[in-house]
Amino acid sequence: MSVWILRLSHRIRRDKRISTHCALVARALGAEGLIYTGEKDEAMEDSVRKVAKNWGGRFRIKHEKKWQPVLNKWKGKTVHLTVYGIPYEKAMAKVRKAKDLLVVIGGEKVPIDVYKQMDWNLSVTTQPHSEVASLALILDRYFKGKFPKFKGKLKVVPQECGKKVIKA
Amino acid sequence: MSVWILRLSHRIRRDKRISTHCALVARALGAEGLIYTGEKDEAMEDSVRKVAKNWGGRFRIKHEKKWQPVLNKWKGKTVHLTVYGIPYEKAMAKVRKAKDLLVVIGGEKVPIDVYKQMDWNLSVTTQPHSEVASLALILDRYFKGKFPKFKGKLKVVPQECGKKVIKA
Repeated sequence: MSVWILRLSHRIRRDKRISTHCALVARALGAEGLIYTGEKDEAMEDSVRKVAKNWGGRFRIKHEKKWQPVLNKWKGKTVHLTVYGIPYEKAMAKVRKAKDLLVVIGGEKVPIDVYKQMDWNLSVTTQPHSEVASLALILDRYFKGKFPKFKGKLKVVPQECGKKVIKA
Repeated sequence: MSVWILRLSHRIRRDKRISTHCALVARALGAEGLIYTGEKDEAMEDSVRKVAKNWGGRFRIKHEKKWQPVLNKWKGKTVHLTVYGIPYEKAMAKVRKAKDLLVVIGGEKVPIDVYKQMDWNLSVTTQPHSEVASLALILDRYFKGKFPKFKGKLKVVPQECGKKVIKA
């Protein structure tokens, strides 16, 4: 099982934190990596790699100039998250059967050619909100709420009230 | 049932889009409104209100100078989303029983006094990721995946491939 995220048209100034959140959510919820197109953003890559280095796992982030070669190379199924798609609940039974899944999340204007090449264009709620939330809910449904255990240098020891982090 | 979000320490420059995403996710997934502290951000408020006006519902957003009076006034239960909290799965059965729920999401440094006044400090995955995703997953579990139907001026007509929005 391999899940990757393809984030389209990243713009450093506008998307820095949203794309970072997408990457961290992808990692925490079980994806293997995130590929992004648009502006190459070393600072974003560094901050994501730093989290992976400190908190464990093998999450990868990489920049590609164009999305078409990424789709061409991908051997598994593809799902694009968009407010315009069909309600995700209707498709998840099929999506869950995909052994390898590429989850595409848009930047500002997603070319119609992306829609055409997808196995599914899916919407979470058919209301405008956030690609971070849509990604979280799709990964939750795909992995059925079973998120990975990480062994990192840093580890939170859950507290009812307070903060405790230990270093391995 | 009334769910509100309290977003702490909003900074216009850094948090503009993340706080906007939190508000839109809150709306789409069934919360009634978002209160935020930190810098008052007219542009963010306008963009959230514009979505609510066009897409339906009565979602509200408002700024308060300090968080303590917000907690003092709140009559229902309170849950703070933090990487340091206990795994949310362990508490959701109880959280779901709360008729009114205030979901607190942090800014950079959340004062320990906030932790102390909460009914629950909960973590989604105990890994660092995104308050947008944590909020989405908590609301999903609280509402058991039943999200509101909106009647707005704009409405998406779900498509397998393409974009269709109709105006009422």
